[in-house]
Amino acid sequence: MPAPDNDVFLRALRREPTPYTPVWLMRQAGRYLPEYNATRAKAGSFLALAKTPALAAEVALQPLARYPLDAAILFSDILTVPDAMGLGLHFAEGEGPRFERTTADAAAIGRLEAPDMAKLRYVFDALSETKRALAGRVPLIGFAGSPFTLACYMIEGGSSADFATVRRIAYQRPDLLHRLVAINARAVTAYLDEQIAAGADALMLFDTWGGVLSAAAYRTFSLAPMRSVLAALAPLPDGRPVPTIVFTKGGGQWLDDIATCGASCVGVDWTTDLAAARRRVGARVALQGNLDPLVLLTEPPVVAREAAAVVRAAGPGPGHVFNLGHGILPATPPENVAALVEAVHRESLAARAGA
Amino acid sequence: MPAPDNDVFLRALRREPTPYTPVWLMRQAGRYLPEYNATRAKAGSFLALAKTPALAAEVALQPLARYPLDAAILFSDILTVPDAMGLGLHFAEGEGPRFERTTADAAAIGRLEAPDMAKLRYVFDALSETKRALAGRVPLIGFAGSPFTLACYMIEGGSSADFATVRRIAYQRPDLLHRLVAINARAVTAYLDEQIAAGADALMLFDTWGGVLSAAAYRTFSLAPMRSVLAALAPLPDGRPVPTIVFTKGGGQWLDDIATCGASCVGVDWTTDLAAARRRVGARVALQGNLDPLVLLTEPPVVAREAAAVVRAAGPGPGHVFNLGHGILPATPPENVAALVEAVHRESLAARAGA
Repeated sequence: MPAPDNDVFLRALRREPTPYTPVWLMRQAGRYLPEYNATRAKAGSFLALAKTPALAAEVALQPLARYPLDAAILFSDILTVPDAMGLGLHFAEGEGPRFERTTADAAAIGRLEAPDMAKLRYVFDALSETKRALAGRVPLIGFAGSPFTLACYMIEGGSSADFATVRRIAYQRPDLLHRLVAINARAVTAYLDEQIAAGADALMLFDTWGGVLSAAAYRTFSLAPMRSVLAALAPLPDGRPVPTIVFTKGGGQWLDDIATCGASCVGVDWTTDLAAARRRVGARVALQGNLDPLVLLTEPPVVAREAAAVVRAAGPGPGHVFNLGHGILPATPPENVAALVEAVHRESLAARAGA
Repeated sequence: MPAPDNDVFLRALRREPTPYTPVWLMRQAGRYLPEYNATRAKAGSFLALAKTPALAAEVALQPLARYPLDAAILFSDILTVPDAMGLGLHFAEGEGPRFERTTADAAAIGRLEAPDMAKLRYVFDALSETKRALAGRVPLIGFAGSPFTLACYMIEGGSSADFATVRRIAYQRPDLLHRLVAINARAVTAYLDEQIAAGADALMLFDTWGGVLSAAAYRTFSLAPMRSVLAALAPLPDGRPVPTIVFTKGGGQWLDDIATCGASCVGVDWTTDLAAARRRVGARVALQGNLDPLVLLTEPPVVAREAAAVVRAAGPGPGHVFNLGHGILPATPPENVAALVEAVHRESLAARAGA
């Protein structure tokens, strides 16, 4: 398995010098692209799209046909794992994910088991199909939800403004939440190991909701199980450790802790100053982020100006992967994404040239 | 104007030693209390209640009849100020605040002026009526929304999941947002000065939405105007500076900056570790917070355990005001609040006795 033609992203994750700052965007394959909407319409639904490997690979490659992005990411959803546990995932149009069954009490959590990975074959097939289609152009990122973030959806039955039930259980029945995130951690480890086997070059844990917890509860229920997952992952086929990214939205104030969890790279949302983040984590990890996705709803000169500010904040040292601070918004004009990718490459090249 | 009989809260704000940790709770007068709901029903609506000084004073004192709280707070709403600017505030049942008119473009912002304080007479009357009814038992806190948080509601026309329009304007038309927060800062300064004249013993700025901004935008559009307000406030009638609290929800990672804004005390939400916060701000300010309000949906032993953990995290030094990390929830059982106040007083007394 040779290195990708463009390995700038993987080198940045390893904090090696790169000629320019690599860039990819969370949800880069998504509803802001007309060609994505066309493929999704063909599939019939988001879930049908995610469960059809040829179509999932097709949409994963769509943004790379438009923009010189430095990585591709598996097209899937973090909730495939609890779906495979039998919770009955579905998406109501415009309403986000819902589970038919919640996992919020001792009985439901007692019945829960890490799923048979055969039920998630369609994900690994989508990944290997995407890898083949990429033909070594750029690295391919596999991913999973963090054990805690999966628990959030499993307990609430969907998304939530404040995850009140999860937070209450964390104080009232910590034993139950411990058991739930432990099961999820085993499931996520097996799931990511299969993604490595299917050809993932790097892995990302999306901890979308860790930021709703108190500092102590975050360390216990979100960071600790992510640490377990990262420690247990299989190596890459070449024997090297797999590069990993951990992203806790709202985790800016816990960066010192997060930087010790075993990930190669820590993602930060747009509320964190990247220069301050770098001072706090030192040279321990690479950093990924962190343009406010709202910037992409303005116009190209504003996009270029704000992208340059992020590149400057990240500083001239190695170990920065440019990304948004959260997923790209459906209302994003595709030409603004072109302006962004161009600005990141241009500004970071110029900075390295001492311009 | 003599000092209140119980000045533990004011001494903690000034970082003077206190025999125990003072405690009050954001939204301590509110829907979790049956007597509040009865008074509100009598008034007909939340706004009618807030606009009737005798009833506003009645509900402000209700929690003090139940619990040995160390401060009272004016019963009002942060949106009285933009309402007085002519935006037409109303509350749809169960839906939160809405404005009839938004202030989201150059024309609307150009027309805006700081309101005549005569239109807010009912707030100052409610405050002086509450002060009289308190009869010096505990200090009375006045408050306002931060200039930026008011701008959020004025631009969006109500609350929002992501304040997308505000964030877009911050990047696309920073000149407009500058103008809007500057007008709000003048209005808030005048509003708080009137509250001092009406008898407020301390003041709090609620920056509920500053946390949605990037670090740079937060400093520019939220922290800087709060700094202006604090610098311009009149002294207390006795000539001493008024003690002030600034609370940016989601501002934990910016504490170093916030601690320099001129406030006596910085409020922190439940995601921040108070011990870490104290290390970051040193002895510059008092800290207020920060129990997760969800803890109050459990039962008294859990409440007592978690309250003790917050008291321990705050440490034995002076300058801690116990509070929740956000407003008390309507579903809170009143007996849990009793358990909380008792635990804070008991644990902090014991800690000072070296127990």
